[in-house]
Amino acid sequence: MRLATIRTSDGRTRAVRVDGDALVDLGAADVGELLARPGWAERAARADGDAVESAGFAPVVPRPGKIVCIGLNYRTHILEMGRELPRYPTLFAKYAEALIGAYDEIRLPPESGQVDWEAELAVVIGGRVRRAGEAEAEAAIAGFAVLNDVTMRDWQYRSPVWLQGKTWEASTPFGPYLVTPDELPGGTRPSLTLTGYVDGEVVQRADTSDLVFDPVALVRYVSTIVTLNPGDVIATGTPGGVGHAREPARYLTDGSVLATEITGLGRAESKAVAEKPAAAEGVS
Amino acid sequence: MRLATIRTSDGRTRAVRVDGDALVDLGAADVGELLARPGWAERAARADGDAVESAGFAPVVPRPGKIVCIGLNYRTHILEMGRELPRYPTLFAKYAEALIGAYDEIRLPPESGQVDWEAELAVVIGGRVRRAGEAEAEAAIAGFAVLNDVTMRDWQYRSPVWLQGKTWEASTPFGPYLVTPDELPGGTRPSLTLTGYVDGEVVQRADTSDLVFDPVALVRYVSTIVTLNPGDVIATGTPGGVGHAREPARYLTDGSVLATEITGLGRAESKAVAEKPAAAEGVS
Repeated sequence: MRLATIRTSDGRTRAVRVDGDALVDLGAADVGELLARPGWAERAARADGDAVESAGFAPVVPRPGKIVCIGLNYRTHILEMGRELPRYPTLFAKYAEALIGAYDEIRLPPESGQVDWEAELAVVIGGRVRRAGEAEAEAAIAGFAVLNDVTMRDWQYRSPVWLQGKTWEASTPFGPYLVTPDELPGGTRPSLTLTGYVDGEVVQRADTSDLVFDPVALVRYVSTIVTLNPGDVIATGTPGGVGHAREPARYLTDGSVLATEITGLGRAESKAVAEKPAAAEGVS
Repeated sequence: MRLATIRTSDGRTRAVRVDGDALVDLGAADVGELLARPGWAERAARADGDAVESAGFAPVVPRPGKIVCIGLNYRTHILEMGRELPRYPTLFAKYAEALIGAYDEIRLPPESGQVDWEAELAVVIGGRVRRAGEAEAEAAIAGFAVLNDVTMRDWQYRSPVWLQGKTWEASTPFGPYLVTPDELPGGTRPSLTLTGYVDGEVVQRADTSDLVFDPVALVRYVSTIVTLNPGDVIATGTPGGVGHAREPARYLTDGSVLATEITGLGRAESKAVAEKPAAAEGVS
């Protein structure tokens, strides 16, 4: 089953089931609201509501209560850099204001000259769990979606921790839709090909089965610390190939097209657009 | 004016104005909801609604859209450690599930043996701002409150970044109430004495005018990156005296009483209580 949050022509959003070209109304304003309802999966599968006319994809979950991002997590990439596999996952945050729909423009702020890409598999939570065991963690995964953890490297490294490079307004494509685990090879530990493109050129490619900490392990780990709630998102980390690590370094510029594709989960494709200096007035 | 979110005997919450011992209903479920209404300050000042019977203080804002925490930010402490003053603030996040009311118990999870204190001045946002100039940033500050950024040091240092030590469920006292800048010496850059106590002993003390990045500067900086919305919180950092830096190191244990006091903003006082091992079943 594929679920999406669709914008409608009246400026609102609707949760829909995506059946090929048909968008079936699920009676909720967005996928986050849908997932908070008990029995959402059965309800969504059975729904035969009105067709929804789309004015574009919103972020799959427009306002997650939490977005938990994972640092270095692709085994091959870690080993090829000569590092040891980490004992614990690295967690950092992103705020909901960073999210954009899968085909929205990425805003390039005039304050950063180093806007970089990080193609990622995102886990969307569909239940409420704390200190989840294995089965509970699997059951708490509503599905998976494409996300690109676009990062302002100059700001990421201004201080010892990364948040300020990770949460710029309208920077992070998320979607187009969520796919439930039953439709994916590997289920809650899916084996999918993740590919990042800049201007049509492949810049990142990996298999999501190469994760050191897989989605189930991450749900268990994060929920040890804090309750995971429906609509929460875990971005599972990015493989090699980011622009900052290239020689010479390479970043998104005005007009760059960033695409992120995961087999079975579709493709996000965003044009990067420089914000006008006027928008930056009053910056300290 | 003092504003609080009060628990009521029916298990709900109400936003109130605190007039000495009287709690005046402000017609909103909590201070976050109140601050999202245009003209909230005038409305709250004029309100003469019913008296509310308190069943205790909830976190001042129970579900902030964002909690932005600031790292090393007390000038005297940085200099006494022989470090240079930072050029940029260090930002990290905490999720809303970490917050507790000013007199609630702090949960000591069995997974951590290093639960430490960080007494802090919190800024509560009362408007919507992006790239705020000086006057706009001042106007966006609804007020200030006490917060203790309780930190699991063993988890904080498990990975290169800090989030996983900073956002444990039910760990972070926030309140009792918000005080508007007009009631404080220094206004939006208040000069207040911040004191942390463990079991009645002073463990931290500083003046909030010693901040390297003051509240107005922080609103400007954070809003350069991302929109600040009503109810968002900025925790401005802690001075010296945390338990982890002591020799020998000192942490909260079952029964410890952690108090945090800021002149003019009142006092939070929480008992630390070890979670029972049963609560930790299913931990990986």
